[in-house]
Amino acid sequence: MTPSRSSSPAPGSTAALRPANQRRIVELLRARGGESVTQAEAARETGLAAATVSNIVRDLSAAGIVETEPGSGRRGSVVRFARTAGLVASLDFGHSHVAAAVADLAGVVLAEAEAPLHADHPYVEGLALAGELLDTALAEAGHDRSDLRTLCVGLPAPIEGRVVRASAILPGWIGVDAEAVVAEAFGLPVHVENDANLGAWAEHRVGAARGSDNVVFVKSSSGVGGGLIIDGRLFRGARGMAGEIGHLTIDDQGPLCRCGSRGCLEAYTSTATLAAMFAGQGSGVGMTELVAAAHEGNVSARRVFEDAGLHLGWGLASIVNLVNPDVVVVGGDLALAGDLVLDAARVGLRRHALADAADTPVVVSALGRRASLVGGLLLAAERTDVLA
Amino acid sequence: MTPSRSSSPAPGSTAALRPANQRRIVELLRARGGESVTQAEAARETGLAAATVSNIVRDLSAAGIVETEPGSGRRGSVVRFARTAGLVASLDFGHSHVAAAVADLAGVVLAEAEAPLHADHPYVEGLALAGELLDTALAEAGHDRSDLRTLCVGLPAPIEGRVVRASAILPGWIGVDAEAVVAEAFGLPVHVENDANLGAWAEHRVGAARGSDNVVFVKSSSGVGGGLIIDGRLFRGARGMAGEIGHLTIDDQGPLCRCGSRGCLEAYTSTATLAAMFAGQGSGVGMTELVAAAHEGNVSARRVFEDAGLHLGWGLASIVNLVNPDVVVVGGDLALAGDLVLDAARVGLRRHALADAADTPVVVSALGRRASLVGGLLLAAERTDVLA
Repeated sequence: MTPSRSSSPAPGSTAALRPANQRRIVELLRARGGESVTQAEAARETGLAAATVSNIVRDLSAAGIVETEPGSGRRGSVVRFARTAGLVASLDFGHSHVAAAVADLAGVVLAEAEAPLHADHPYVEGLALAGELLDTALAEAGHDRSDLRTLCVGLPAPIEGRVVRASAILPGWIGVDAEAVVAEAFGLPVHVENDANLGAWAEHRVGAARGSDNVVFVKSSSGVGGGLIIDGRLFRGARGMAGEIGHLTIDDQGPLCRCGSRGCLEAYTSTATLAAMFAGQGSGVGMTELVAAAHEGNVSARRVFEDAGLHLGWGLASIVNLVNPDVVVVGGDLALAGDLVLDAARVGLRRHALADAADTPVVVSALGRRASLVGGLLLAAERTDVLA
Repeated sequence: MTPSRSSSPAPGSTAALRPANQRRIVELLRARGGESVTQAEAARETGLAAATVSNIVRDLSAAGIVETEPGSGRRGSVVRFARTAGLVASLDFGHSHVAAAVADLAGVVLAEAEAPLHADHPYVEGLALAGELLDTALAEAGHDRSDLRTLCVGLPAPIEGRVVRASAILPGWIGVDAEAVVAEAFGLPVHVENDANLGAWAEHRVGAARGSDNVVFVKSSSGVGGGLIIDGRLFRGARGMAGEIGHLTIDDQGPLCRCGSRGCLEAYTSTATLAAMFAGQGSGVGMTELVAAAHEGNVSARRVFEDAGLHLGWGLASIVNLVNPDVVVVGGDLALAGDLVLDAARVGLRRHALADAADTPVVVSALGRRASLVGGLLLAAERTDVLA
């Protein structure tokens, strides 16, 4: 008996039960993200009878979807996705790099590869390089493209539906139906997502915000974006722009921002702003050098992070008042400064947030620069209909 | 045969189907909010067979939960909640009033009553008056308290769990376990909710934002609060504070706010601020007089609304960038000014929001000062387990 693959029984009919129960087991394996699950645990967590679980695992095993590893008795045996069920992949485009990774259907990373990529690249060139990196990662994992089920692509721009909207960071992609061109290039089901949204999802599922259902993730690098997890789900907003913290007006008369407005948060916390503030102390410094200088006690470097942090805290106060999350996770290059910037951000938050929201924890990203890439793998795994 | 009331069949078992199908019919009636539903429509919308619907309606009718009205044949007969299934009620506490209303289980209003109430009332006094109003409304509808199934209470304060948090508007309720004291006073299942959240829910379900799943509702009266509908659900945030737009910092060095901070949105748009700005033109004016003066061309009154609108727009830009809703609904006393204030708010929004979010529609509340009261009825109806 193989799992039901294409039948669509009427809702509320008994025929709907068997695939529904298979789905419960598959969802459990996915939710556990590769942690070991025994048949006994599966029965306990799904509320299904042990014998039912046993039958389902046998069916899914025969179909090559799961595999089991002997434990103490049949109920103690560990169940996990089989590689024969396929893999998922993630591509992450940044301001100056592109990365690729492959994972199993629970989102467990098998291999990764990365290369520099200039920000002004035409999207066709970016996709070609991403394809090479993907093949490198697949080969390292002992697979090839025919094993892929779903591909997720992260881009540092708002995504409305499938189309990349205005982005000063990635001009070669503006107006592109990214889902269509990537699907054409790779011949796979594709999901395109804003990179900060993917970072938020990764931190929520397996990172610094694990266990929290209401999460704000801020990615502050060359641009400043954000992602929102609301009641355990990624929230995109009406036009894919939810979480765009970078262009909150901090000061109506403040410095010009590349978005055309003035005094936006991004104009105070982007890496370019920080480098410019430090320019008198040495030209061309990157975040790594700036962090090192601050740790060595350089007053100017410390002041740069303090100013950025105070402004970041003001922006966080707006989002904390409006969204009232359990936790705020700060990622991107700015997070390399750790408490050098977050201590000031917490002061800014207390200064501008309502009393009951002012003590919302502000923590550093656990996944660092891999956040978006990992989020893409998790999302691709979730979007793969294992039983289809 | 009466509907299943207390059995809890194992998930995924055939025994779970019959109550699940009854629930589909009940949910449909509730979702339609009192609009007529024929048995044929019920079959079409639930995907259930016509004969199944017919059996369910017969069972629910026998149990006094629904009643039918003859149409063209049995499939054309209209189904609705029977009064014998019970009613729901809503109490709305404001800065200077309290209102009560009763409705059927679809949330259709049957009667309302309202009375003035000073803001500094001890909560016990407020509840006593609310009880009298509720009895008045029930009597008008030909019912009494024994017919009530669920009561919803709206308060102008953040609600964390069941407890009223800091509120400068309603000091007599701070720290009160509102759910417990109301349940004790009325002997009913009680839901306590922030008033702006209820307003948001009402505008989403039956008001100016009907059909939109991502909604920001701003209530600007003596205080300024807000409510968020995210993906069709009311979003409260980690501590019941989501949507608190009133205390976004507009100007770090701006006027003191009663929250202890400076330059909050509320300090620019509350009715007290508007009255103070107009004070030179005549003392003790309320919103009604101020609106009349502006319509008559009084330059000072027009300037008051324009200034309030520009600041409101700035605050809306923050929420629009972060939440990216389909629509913003403005309610509370400030909405009495209509486009006198909203035209300026749209300018402020364009000035401060990201280009792709700057054209988010900003509309006036359809339910006006009844928004929270109606939202309470809808929420109480949804929280009533009709089949329990």
